[in-house]
Amino acid sequence: MRIAVDAMGGDYAPQEIIAGAVRAVQDDPALEVILVGDQARIEAELSSVGRPPGLMIRHAAEVVGMEEAPGPAIRSKRQASVSVATRLIKAGEAEALVTAGNSGAALAAATLYLRTVPGVARPGIMLLLPVQGGRQAVVMDGGANVDCEARHLYQFAHLANVYAKDVLGLPEPRVGLLNIGEEDGKGNAVAKQAFTLLRASSLNFTGNLDAKDVFRGVADVIVCDGFVGNVLLKVAESIAEFIVEALKTAIHTNSLTRLGGWLLRPALQPLRRQVDAHEYGGALLLGVNGLVVISHGRSNARAIQNAIRVAAEAVAGGVMGHIREAFRGESEAACQEVASGPE
Amino acid sequence: MRIAVDAMGGDYAPQEIIAGAVRAVQDDPALEVILVGDQARIEAELSSVGRPPGLMIRHAAEVVGMEEAPGPAIRSKRQASVSVATRLIKAGEAEALVTAGNSGAALAAATLYLRTVPGVARPGIMLLLPVQGGRQAVVMDGGANVDCEARHLYQFAHLANVYAKDVLGLPEPRVGLLNIGEEDGKGNAVAKQAFTLLRASSLNFTGNLDAKDVFRGVADVIVCDGFVGNVLLKVAESIAEFIVEALKTAIHTNSLTRLGGWLLRPALQPLRRQVDAHEYGGALLLGVNGLVVISHGRSNARAIQNAIRVAAEAVAGGVMGHIREAFRGESEAACQEVASGPE
Repeated sequence: MRIAVDAMGGDYAPQEIIAGAVRAVQDDPALEVILVGDQARIEAELSSVGRPPGLMIRHAAEVVGMEEAPGPAIRSKRQASVSVATRLIKAGEAEALVTAGNSGAALAAATLYLRTVPGVARPGIMLLLPVQGGRQAVVMDGGANVDCEARHLYQFAHLANVYAKDVLGLPEPRVGLLNIGEEDGKGNAVAKQAFTLLRASSLNFTGNLDAKDVFRGVADVIVCDGFVGNVLLKVAESIAEFIVEALKTAIHTNSLTRLGGWLLRPALQPLRRQVDAHEYGGALLLGVNGLVVISHGRSNARAIQNAIRVAAEAVAGGVMGHIREAFRGESEAACQEVASGPE
Repeated sequence: MRIAVDAMGGDYAPQEIIAGAVRAVQDDPALEVILVGDQARIEAELSSVGRPPGLMIRHAAEVVGMEEAPGPAIRSKRQASVSVATRLIKAGEAEALVTAGNSGAALAAATLYLRTVPGVARPGIMLLLPVQGGRQAVVMDGGANVDCEARHLYQFAHLANVYAKDVLGLPEPRVGLLNIGEEDGKGNAVAKQAFTLLRASSLNFTGNLDAKDVFRGVADVIVCDGFVGNVLLKVAESIAEFIVEALKTAIHTNSLTRLGGWLLRPALQPLRRQVDAHEYGGALLLGVNGLVVISHGRSNARAIQNAIRVAAEAVAGGVMGHIREAFRGESEAACQEVASGPE
């Protein structure tokens, strides 16, 4: 299996990105990684950390900055690392791409060079959320589409459903529509229409998922528009940080509380890992014709290693093939249905 | 000061509601509370807990159930406790209402009997969110309006701004627009239009508030539509519960961790209070022509006591008068502006 990694994208690029890629190939001898970026800088970095077999370099002369406007950057910088890496997928030289760079640019490059899977109206961002019982829920859309129609939510459900089957290994993922109550008929206009489409679909649709139940593990796939999804994920992350900070403050109150914290420390490890964004490593861009993993801008080596694992799991699970299959039949029919419907 | 309390509304009504009202008047001799509901049941309850001076009863023969459809219930049950209590405000017999009953019914009763403040297009739900540094942020709309236009968000900002001044005592509250990034131009269509309106307003508008910064205390007023606001508040509450549960599990791992938890316990009290919904007691319905505090359905006596305190603070701060003033000038002009604008 061969995965392209954008060596120049991210707040800690290229050092942490390269370190993460090195660890990934060291841990998995069956894995090959192509580091895409400034060859001289990558070689200099590898000369200090060592270059394991399975690690290749592809030169890319340009870089898209974290704050650059994505569309113009991708159109004007054909040799940007993220663009060169995306074209490796198109050319069949890599099976997936991992980037911690400008996420809008990654989306723009994927849309430009890979296009969408036939039948998919809009690609979206899929993320994993830790939920009770040590499980994970798939959230889509996590932020690519801020203004959605019901049919987009319907398609996100199908895309995320494939992932939940192929990678989480769930035979019949429970699909919930994120809403402000669990009763039928709840929500805004788009949610109500999406409910109708999902109810009529072949998915194992369990109805509206009240936002208060998101972490209870009652849905495997959580469907929402990109505005709400982005708020959900960021709020979850930031309140977790807020509580962890408050916990640290409590532990540092006096010597007794410090002792208490020290005694509790081993038992708190699972929680620490669960709320640590670096453990998740990446979001998948689903709906484009190729696998793209977008990692957090502030990814460290461990986050990149996890993002490469996410990409490898999606490749191994056959996600792309199953998405193409899913959208050959069902989804085109649904689109026609919606187009001629009352929406 | 006199506050009407819906004795029949809430999962633990009437016992916990009555107990909360009793504590409130015991704590504050200047406060009078009118318990509204089934006179016989209220008297029976008071005969066991004692009836302090300052506690009155107003009989109401009907009750709106927690799961009843709000509109039809309010139209058909004129003698429902929430309706009788709302009319006490209209008649000038009470200065505010507290209810832990069906929140849709409270909104419907308020809209029917009190109407909106002239100039306000739609009332909304205002809530307090704990943020870093032991501060609180005002969030509006917390769930009353799931499909909003930009001008509604603009009005929510003005309504919440009055509260932040009058009750939180902030001379110039920092108003942020909840968004998926902090840069200008971020967000969905409604957020972009609301940004333009807020930028041109007399408010101390600090721009887009990235959802990841919600708990950092960088905004005093957080403006959003009711769908997003409801998701925000529920997710915050449920992830806090999720982490508290994980913490309890960690503490109960073995005897050493139990000792650790016991040592940490006193230092964790501020955090416990901060994430405990019962401490907040209530959401304010802002924009209707009278003060209505909607408390959590599962309010216990302490939550009701806190909700009565929230109502009393709003009365003491002169919130209603200032809202009427704010909407006499600015807001009507803004509405005309929007009506003739490009929206």
